[in-house]
Amino acid sequence: MMMLEVVFTISIFVLTSSAEKLSIDGQRVVDQLTKLATFSDHQNPAVTRILFTPNDMMARSYVKELMTSAGLTIREDAMGNIFGRFEGSDATLGSVLTGSHCDAIPLAGMYDGTLGVIGAIEALAALKKAGYKPRRALEVMMFTSEEPTRFALSCVGSRAMSGALTSEYLSSKLDENGTSFLEAANAVGYGSSTYHQLLQDALVPKGKIDYFVELHIEQGPELEKESKDIGVVTAIAAPAALKVEFHGDGGHAGAQLMPLRNDAGLAGAELALAVERHTLATGSVDSVGTTGVFEIKPGAVNSVPREARLGIDIRDIDGVRRDKTVESVRASAKEIAERRNVRHTVTLVNQDPPAICNSDIQTAVAEAAKELGLSTKSMVSRAYHDSLFMARIAPTGMIFIPCKNGYSHRPDEFSSVKDIQQGVHVLALTMAALSGGSWPQDKSEL
Amino acid sequence: MMMLEVVFTISIFVLTSSAEKLSIDGQRVVDQLTKLATFSDHQNPAVTRILFTPNDMMARSYVKELMTSAGLTIREDAMGNIFGRFEGSDATLGSVLTGSHCDAIPLAGMYDGTLGVIGAIEALAALKKAGYKPRRALEVMMFTSEEPTRFALSCVGSRAMSGALTSEYLSSKLDENGTSFLEAANAVGYGSSTYHQLLQDALVPKGKIDYFVELHIEQGPELEKESKDIGVVTAIAAPAALKVEFHGDGGHAGAQLMPLRNDAGLAGAELALAVERHTLATGSVDSVGTTGVFEIKPGAVNSVPREARLGIDIRDIDGVRRDKTVESVRASAKEIAERRNVRHTVTLVNQDPPAICNSDIQTAVAEAAKELGLSTKSMVSRAYHDSLFMARIAPTGMIFIPCKNGYSHRPDEFSSVKDIQQGVHVLALTMAALSGGSWPQDKSEL
Ligand SMILES: [Mn+2]
Ligand SMILES: [Mn+2]
Ligand SMILES: [Mn+2]
Ligand SMILES: [Mn+2]
Repeated sequence: MMMLEVVFTISIFVLTSSAEKLSIDGQRVVDQLTKLATFSDHQNPAVTRILFTPNDMMARSYVKELMTSAGLTIREDAMGNIFGRFEGSDATLGSVLTGSHCDAIPLAGMYDGTLGVIGAIEALAALKKAGYKPRRALEVMMFTSEEPTRFALSCVGSRAMSGALTSEYLSSKLDENGTSFLEAANAVGYGSSTYHQLLQDALVPKGKIDYFVELHIEQGPELEKESKDIGVVTAIAAPAALKVEFHGDGGHAGAQLMPLRNDAGLAGAELALAVERHTLATGSVDSVGTTGVFEIKPGAVNSVPREARLGIDIRDIDGVRRDKTVESVRASAKEIAERRNVRHTVTLVNQDPPAICNSDIQTAVAEAAKELGLSTKSMVSRAYHDSLFMARIAPTGMIFIPCKNGYSHRPDEFSSVKDIQQGVHVLALTMAALSGGSWPQDKSEL
Repeated sequence: MMMLEVVFTISIFVLTSSAEKLSIDGQRVVDQLTKLATFSDHQNPAVTRILFTPNDMMARSYVKELMTSAGLTIREDAMGNIFGRFEGSDATLGSVLTGSHCDAIPLAGMYDGTLGVIGAIEALAALKKAGYKPRRALEVMMFTSEEPTRFALSCVGSRAMSGALTSEYLSSKLDENGTSFLEAANAVGYGSSTYHQLLQDALVPKGKIDYFVELHIEQGPELEKESKDIGVVTAIAAPAALKVEFHGDGGHAGAQLMPLRNDAGLAGAELALAVERHTLATGSVDSVGTTGVFEIKPGAVNSVPREARLGIDIRDIDGVRRDKTVESVRASAKEIAERRNVRHTVTLVNQDPPAICNSDIQTAVAEAAKELGLSTKSMVSRAYHDSLFMARIAPTGMIFIPCKNGYSHRPDEFSSVKDIQQGVHVLALTMAALSGGSWPQDKSEL
């Protein structure tokens, strides 16, 4: 009899756990991600979605449509950040905010960022449907321009929300057609009359957000390699970006003799290799350095390059070590320019500190995963996220799910329906735990 | 009495020399070059004029207008080569042909090629005005697409005229919009129904051209440095062009760890530096090697380059040495691709033999210069010219004039009115000598 009772108790526990109350439809999330991917400047599977272009605007409409269907209250700020709110019982508390981005660099995939928006809407819809009553309000959001494609500035929306952006700096950023952010925003119905107003509108008042959590694909191979279901992010690597230009005198590829040349393209080639060399020199697998932009002019086969423009990205989980790499790259640019007799400029686009994830959120994520019987791995995010800036104004955490081969920023980026379903489920339970609300037949109420 | 007679005879000789009979207006040539430069896709002083674009078509109209004003009979072939003819007295002989090109690579200057067209029209107009009667017909022409900008193939018009182009090869060349040469030609009123007919129409029959001479700016610094007026070209360097592509797997600039990368951009950077290294390794100043095209994809600062496309130009006055450099570059491409674990392809775009200039023409140019009291320098042309292909079907020569600092293929390309006037004068006298015609009061008729 004693033994039977034990079994019975365990059974009751399983039936009434919050995990069991939630129904997360992974396939629906994938269907919605697939639909979202059709708003692209390149043919699928490639996804290209640039800030405030027609495809970005169609993606925004679709996101708002899904928020409305989920019964969320929509609000947008002047920067174009979109919020969907599920009101809580205690208006004196800040919200539990989640979200990510829907813009995509040229020829990217369909999961980066989008999962953290579409998946979060599914999470909130499921909580609502299950009768969960939030204490802290639950909010899902889509950030404006996490990717730096259009204005050579990443995380534009979250920088503005966290006060990490000045009018001077934002107004100095023009796209390749010379359009400013404010002009671009005003043209699609966002924006404001001045940069000051624009940033003022987006700035989050103190106490407005109690927790921020972002669900994202790992964009690295570790979870898959170790067969772990969920990544509990402990820190976000410190990113820096440099723009380097070399200017030489060009000339005819046949007539300009080698000793008289100052080929800007070759200066650029040397610097790209120096970026790799300095990054490897740290000896740490956590240091990464990339020359992702390399453009030369005039770009004709019979003309000596007279101009080279490089975009360099350097990241590390150790901010000090990252800064040393940045300095080494600067020094190489100078040395190469002097040796090759070309003029050069180095512009520091950004050099942000790393972010440490909040331990309460890490615990909540780990417990949610445990409740669902999922394995976890504590890990660092090497990719850039809006979380990096949200961490400046709120306790912040991230949830990773595996992605195939660690591929990201490419058309064959992929996460399975099962991994997506599990990630969304963990997100929902984490948010419920952080909200402090109640389940309809919560065990604690028995 | 005896002495006086001698003085008198010399005086007669000076007055009646052919040089004195010609009036060449250097300023008019510069004015016409300046007008021609306005037909440009970029704002002056930069000149960009791409084959069969509206600006190229306007330039062609202007050239034909000038030919008509000079009293020349105009003919065009299916390739778009334009001829202006001054008939000779002996129809059984071939013509003395001169000419160059009017297309311009992106952001080039206003003298490259154009001088050899506009200056030659002035030369023929002056000969006509002076009453010179050609024996061999005198012809000036504008070649179609000497520059490789649109179809990645240089000297398209002269290759066709000299039989150096097959239907298969020309039809395989598409511009960046996927348009073929035949489609592009037909769209502007040139062309034909088939590639076979197109090339047949342009092919020059045997005996049609007795001499070809091209007037051109040096595109190098030697004449200016040595204060010489006229370059007598002895040979044209052997050009070769390669297209190399590297393909890697790309990835996220933050998340793709360094040991797992196969960065196509870095493979390209190494190859560009290898081109320079192999070129310098010949130890000869006559070897030049250039990576003038360097494009990477996706070209985003936060994305590891997954594709690099290089356009490489290698020239030498020694064909065998040039071929060795080409082979070294091929070997480096292979070695780099294997070491960096990227896929690669090498396409040989062209690998033409050098051309030796005809000695009778060199003598005629040197004598014309001497008659005008101008200094000369025998020299090699390191730049590519239509002359390279004309040399396959006719005795060919080139006349160079100095250009400032040796600059070419850039907006500040410059030759003085005086140098232009002298070059056109030498061209006119050279053509008259090669034509074998008569001056109105020629000494030989006395
Ligand atoms: Mn991304
Ligand atoms: Mn992302
Ligand atoms: Mn040229
Ligand atoms: Mn030329």
